[in-house]
Amino acid sequence: MKNEQALTKEMILDAAESVLRRFGPDKSSVVDVARVLSVSHGTIYRHFPSKAVLRAAVTERWLHQISDPLQAIAEEKGGSTAQRLRQWFLVLSQSKLAYAVEDPEMFAMYTAVTLETADVISEHVDCLISQIAQIVERGIKQGELKPGQPEVMARALFIAMAHFNHPAHAYEWSETTLGQDFDSVWGLLIEGIKAS
Amino acid sequence: MKNEQALTKEMILDAAESVLRRFGPDKSSVVDVARVLSVSHGTIYRHFPSKAVLRAAVTERWLHQISDPLQAIAEEKGGSTAQRLRQWFLVLSQSKLAYAVEDPEMFAMYTAVTLETADVISEHVDCLISQIAQIVERGIKQGELKPGQPEVMARALFIAMAHFNHPAHAYEWSETTLGQDFDSVWGLLIEGIKAS
Repeated sequence: MKNEQALTKEMILDAAESVLRRFGPDKSSVVDVARVLSVSHGTIYRHFPSKAVLRAAVTERWLHQISDPLQAIAEEKGGSTAQRLRQWFLVLSQSKLAYAVEDPEMFAMYTAVTLETADVISEHVDCLISQIAQIVERGIKQGELKPGQPEVMARALFIAMAHFNHPAHAYEWSETTLGQDFDSVWGLLIEGIKAS
Repeated sequence: MKNEQALTKEMILDAAESVLRRFGPDKSSVVDVARVLSVSHGTIYRHFPSKAVLRAAVTERWLHQISDPLQAIAEEKGGSTAQRLRQWFLVLSQSKLAYAVEDPEMFAMYTAVTLETADVISEHVDCLISQIAQIVERGIKQGELKPGQPEVMARALFIAMAHFNHPAHAYEWSETTLGQDFDSVWGLLIEGIKAS
């Protein structure tokens, strides 16, 4: 047995991710995760009270890998609001696409797990929408966007861009028109919110 | 045996739909369809050369039940372009929602079958987009919409409204914010295309 004191949540999440990758979500157990770490399953349960909680934590961490870099864009100074918003959506869709293409099995698994853990996904969506709202709010203050409620506008933008971000559309991301479609949908949306 | 001369394609499609409804797509066979109609399966094959062709035809007919009423809206005279476009999208999302709520098993089945029969779905999508383009083109000519390429604008609108129409989003249609979200997304889009 390893020194259980040194066991961090991060290490358990790494092990859980590798187990999920190896066995898939249905066949993974807390015992498998404990085995990878050479600890008892009781030790894992002390950090994560159930398999469902552990799986949700793995998913949450994965979703942060998507949302954290976007937070940086939302906070960026310089450039126009229109450019910053477009960049935000472009990076979101590119990171989803990268996951879907480079690691399709994990992407499918996370998508399935995410649908199961409704709280985790709704927190993720709320987090993304509040990042957009942050950009929009600044844009309104600076007179670059039409006046309006930033949260409502942000939610509308997010929903309208679902084709490029929502994992349910991943099967459409191989279409050759994807880039063109991004530009034309984004073109409509920015026209709709820009101050004239 | 019934008089096979009197057997129409429509009757076979009705029977195929009832068989699909009863047994599900995986367990339905052409023999089952023939049995419902009291004909030989050879008779069915004379009209539909394979089970896949028959299933695609059933799906196609279902999709027409969605697209035909929309064609009438696209051709309507009177009212503004903005009103007609909104009405078109509202009826589309309402008919999808009605199918998803009133007949969830059939909706799930059609969704699965539709994904399998890529030709059928892409014809359906092209048909819907050309209806939107028809409204948009008229709107541009009448000076109600900004100048642009009707087909490109129509495709962008269709993609941006996916949340309300695409069956992959059906699980989100029970959200209490659905009507509000429709209004705010549509509000952005119409702002983006209206002539100022």
